[in-house]
Amino acid sequence: MNRNVYLSNITLEEAIERFRENINYTEKNSEKINTIDSLDRITHVPIFAEMSSPFYNSSAMDGVATISEKTYGASEKNRIILNENIDFIHVDTGDPIPKEFDSVIMIEDLIKVDETKFQIYKSAVPWQNIRPLGEDIVESQLILSSKHKIRPIDMGALLTGGINELEVYKKISIGIIPTGTEIVEPGSKLKVGDIIEFNSRVFASQIKQWGGVATRYNIVEDNYEKIKEAVVKASQECDMILINAGSSAGREDFTVDVIKELGEVFLHGVAIKPGKPVILGKVNDKPVIGIPGYPVSAYFIMENLVKKIVEDFCGIATVNKKSLKATLARRVMSSLKYHEFVRVKLGYVNEKLVATPLSRGAGQTMSLVNADGVLHVPQNIEGFEEREEVQVELLKSEEEIKNTLVCIGSHDPIIDIIGELMHADNDRCFLSSAHVGSFGGIMALKNYETHIAPIHLLDETTGNYNNAYIEKYLKGKNIALIKLVDRVQGIMVRKENKAKVNQLSDIVDNKLKFVNRQRGSGTRILFDYKLKELNINPRNINGYEREEFTHLAVAAAIANGDVECGLGIYSAAKTMNLEFIPLTHECYDIAIPLEFLELPFVKEFIKVITSDEFKRKLKDLGGYDYKHIGEIIYPQEVIE
Amino acid sequence: MNRNVYLSNITLEEAIERFRENINYTEKNSEKINTIDSLDRITHVPIFAEMSSPFYNSSAMDGVATISEKTYGASEKNRIILNENIDFIHVDTGDPIPKEFDSVIMIEDLIKVDETKFQIYKSAVPWQNIRPLGEDIVESQLILSSKHKIRPIDMGALLTGGINELEVYKKISIGIIPTGTEIVEPGSKLKVGDIIEFNSRVFASQIKQWGGVATRYNIVEDNYEKIKEAVVKASQECDMILINAGSSAGREDFTVDVIKELGEVFLHGVAIKPGKPVILGKVNDKPVIGIPGYPVSAYFIMENLVKKIVEDFCGIATVNKKSLKATLARRVMSSLKYHEFVRVKLGYVNEKLVATPLSRGAGQTMSLVNADGVLHVPQNIEGFEEREEVQVELLKSEEEIKNTLVCIGSHDPIIDIIGELMHADNDRCFLSSAHVGSFGGIMALKNYETHIAPIHLLDETTGNYNNAYIEKYLKGKNIALIKLVDRVQGIMVRKENKAKVNQLSDIVDNKLKFVNRQRGSGTRILFDYKLKELNINPRNINGYEREEFTHLAVAAAIANGDVECGLGIYSAAKTMNLEFIPLTHECYDIAIPLEFLELPFVKEFIKVITSDEFKRKLKDLGGYDYKHIGEIIYPQEVIE
Repeated sequence: MNRNVYLSNITLEEAIERFRENINYTEKNSEKINTIDSLDRITHVPIFAEMSSPFYNSSAMDGVATISEKTYGASEKNRIILNENIDFIHVDTGDPIPKEFDSVIMIEDLIKVDETKFQIYKSAVPWQNIRPLGEDIVESQLILSSKHKIRPIDMGALLTGGINELEVYKKISIGIIPTGTEIVEPGSKLKVGDIIEFNSRVFASQIKQWGGVATRYNIVEDNYEKIKEAVVKASQECDMILINAGSSAGREDFTVDVIKELGEVFLHGVAIKPGKPVILGKVNDKPVIGIPGYPVSAYFIMENLVKKIVEDFCGIATVNKKSLKATLARRVMSSLKYHEFVRVKLGYVNEKLVATPLSRGAGQTMSLVNADGVLHVPQNIEGFEEREEVQVELLKSEEEIKNTLVCIGSHDPIIDIIGELMHADNDRCFLSSAHVGSFGGIMALKNYETHIAPIHLLDETTGNYNNAYIEKYLKGKNIALIKLVDRVQGIMVRKENKAKVNQLSDIVDNKLKFVNRQRGSGTRILFDYKLKELNINPRNINGYEREEFTHLAVAAAIANGDVECGLGIYSAAKTMNLEFIPLTHECYDIAIPLEFLELPFVKEFIKVITSDEFKRKLKDLGGYDYKHIGEIIYPQEVIE
Repeated sequence: MNRNVYLSNITLEEAIERFRENINYTEKNSEKINTIDSLDRITHVPIFAEMSSPFYNSSAMDGVATISEKTYGASEKNRIILNENIDFIHVDTGDPIPKEFDSVIMIEDLIKVDETKFQIYKSAVPWQNIRPLGEDIVESQLILSSKHKIRPIDMGALLTGGINELEVYKKISIGIIPTGTEIVEPGSKLKVGDIIEFNSRVFASQIKQWGGVATRYNIVEDNYEKIKEAVVKASQECDMILINAGSSAGREDFTVDVIKELGEVFLHGVAIKPGKPVILGKVNDKPVIGIPGYPVSAYFIMENLVKKIVEDFCGIATVNKKSLKATLARRVMSSLKYHEFVRVKLGYVNEKLVATPLSRGAGQTMSLVNADGVLHVPQNIEGFEEREEVQVELLKSEEEIKNTLVCIGSHDPIIDIIGELMHADNDRCFLSSAHVGSFGGIMALKNYETHIAPIHLLDETTGNYNNAYIEKYLKGKNIALIKLVDRVQGIMVRKENKAKVNQLSDIVDNKLKFVNRQRGSGTRILFDYKLKELNINPRNINGYEREEFTHLAVAAAIANGDVECGLGIYSAAKTMNLEFIPLTHECYDIAIPLEFLELPFVKEFIKVITSDEFKRKLKDLGGYDYKHIGEIIYPQEVIE
């Protein structure tokens, strides 16, 4: 007990092995249940039929049961008469065949003479139209092997084979203890510093999907004795315990020490990223796992470690996640020390599956929601090169990925609305977008990472939008521009600061706290262009270095009082109830390779943007001009 | 009402279309639920965040929050001292950053001077190590589109985005009414003529898997008024009703007439096989479907028609079942009138996926349990030729099929035991067997349909087993024989008939009722050989024409009193508690192409048959000699 086992960098496989060495619960993991409740349960032993089906010879047709010998010689010319109760009896499908009969003649082959007599015109073969005893299942026959997940049809075979109850693997019961003084229940009145507790709900859902049963305990504050009390209770009530978090650097010794005092810690730290600071131990012979607090770390620990343990307990054969070969859009570097999980977006662009790495922040729940797949970078590998072929584990179905319009480029909230309308109109159609700025969109088109790129790029020399960039960066690519909207860009401020801002120079003059957009975004290019026009040095903008990735993020930072102003579009200002000082109109268009115009989801895209419903939504949002929406405005050859 | 709509041969697609035209329930199919209960539910509307996450700027690290300006110029040579509460405050990961600070320095980069002072040796960049408000989710941002099935991680994003309840599609509630005077509950004391009711349990499980809720009503006898009463009740309590059966020929007008009286029948009969006599109607504006009674018919109606209706109601996009291209092992003929569903066995033999058609009987539950896939033969197509490439819908995972040892040939109960032991030893290993007799096994090897074939084929000229057949029918194929067991074949009789049988000729002499095995089976060949030896004319055997496909089926027919005797192996007689009169020993061996000996599941097969556990089981069964089990006994070259 209490031996020092702080192993910071053991591999995932070793961790699972160490776990299996230390925990043994195969003896208490089966139970007897009713067959009618056995859907999706796993057989613990092979199941043999207890009775035959049918358990008597029965008629396979509606007709009469007869004695074949009495029918011999019947023909069209030599019809034979059969008498009821002497030569035949009536039978319906499924009726038993009495022992004295050996054949069934279908109703269609009988010619009625009177109420008790039939003529027949061909002889009956012995055993024709009879389902013999055991035709489907013979008593003692194997119905299901052990470790078989019971499907609906299996249940039918069990019941008809006389199996009314059977031995299955128990559903593992897992207690989840959320800990932390700062965490609060969803729906609580929130104050700054509170963190909404949701990991436990994600865990419980994962456990349910894997075939376990989760018990979620109340939140426990960061207090050694209270955590200990909760673990003792859970270890009496459950087969396994998850503690979340208390494995992060600030307070990790809390969880470790509680487990050490009550039982044993046999592992702390696994060489995966995100997810490293996991704790494996046992209390009362039950496994106890300390899960890190960051949701993405927690997710990967659950999927790659806890799931294996659940499968062991529940007799489930691990099924490898569906994976596909994809071409990597960008280089991915990773530490040699860790097995890293990189979230990626996937798209079939130009008939090739392309994987674009997403944000690697462990706190980014949405990056996981929006991810299409996970790229594993094994330990001792530095990463993968751009264009390299890699294997990607899918988070969505292959069919969904095949039917997804990939949209990488500048952000505008209307892209989400378009995606929603496409999917509502045709539920096999998806739009998946990544916000990397207009210039990022141009590069994604160049590398065949995306089908379309929404862009608004100002050419400083001409003051025109978009065309010049396509000509410069996508030469020879046959790119068309579909007109989307003209939108108003301006300065966003809270209502109380309205008086301080009339024009761009007021930001400097009134020393307003500003928030910028990221490099490569059309809005950043516009801002820099305007500053140059006014001869303002960016260094004099208070907050020029702070970057946000979307209009909404800028608007939220202003609304929250975090900063005083920023540049963005009218609809974002309106959404966050901000004042808006218009600066300029800009063209927000869709760049697309000509060859993609005929793709079904591109057609759906065009259908949606030219629909009255979408135009109504643009009108409600405000700040958009959509007169020419859906028109191809470039290149000239295509238009003519 | 009551218009005559008996349409015997409408296509499946038309049937679904007709259904959609007649039923509209989109207005009552959503409900509000708590987010924490939303796993696997389908969003009814797009979901936008109600708050940002984080909703304040927070620290991404354990360390201190500071003012970046105060750190400018810090270097190894020019360390700067920071004072607590003036220049910095302590923060842990997740703690809020007060407005006066704009940067976080990690604990690792601080040099402690005293309790309230740190030295730093590099300057802090504004916004470093800070998670800005909305970094994960910005208020008003789209979290999930409509018609999205909620995954565990989605639940996390919803909760952190302030969504504690949401609008989802209702789970459709389906009432199931089992009808029939002959059907009884599982577990009832059975008498001849009873049929165990299990279809309703299969339906309920299917509905659960599709995301609906099933209510199973009590069995209703075949009585017009009682069925009517049950339908009225269900139409008040459920969104949809299934009646099973009452759509079969004998009594079909019962169900049809009840629906007609209470509402409307708009379709009767769909051009699919099995499954044809289905009824679509409505009562109280709720869909009512009459499902045929044969379990396989019912299954295909459920999967191909009812499922679509459930998906419509529940907002679920139909996902095509996973399918693969396979080579057809045998010609499949089908009526031009029907879209036929043919159950097939699948195996990767010689790196090619081969589909072998299985029994087409609609009452054969086990043929569905044992099937690996379904071959669709569309209407207006006569069938497919042997060797033709066809598309097969999978009933098992591709991985399972890839890891399956295909075993086609003669039947012996020990084959099931071997499969069970293989899977128990390695849960990624499966054995799938089809019983087509020894000669069928030889043909399956010839056509590359199987990995192995268990055979016991007597060469009448030499009295030897197996070799001769391989040499004759599998010339040039490089087939090896693995010794399995020598087993005793004999005559099985019930104990009370023991006195009547001492030798084969007694069957004729005492005019005993006999049951035979199918043509091509080794046992049949043996029987015919013995008859010839004794100069007995098969026509003098009472029951020579009646064929069963397995030893157990023969034994069951005898045990049941259905017939008096049959030929088979000792273990089958013992299982059914029969007397056994030994006739001969025979070699039951495994024929296998040499090239397959290195396949992992073949190695597992050898491992199992040579294990002590298997030998113990053979001993318990009795009648097997296993001295040389696992040895390669042919051809000579391989042995030497």
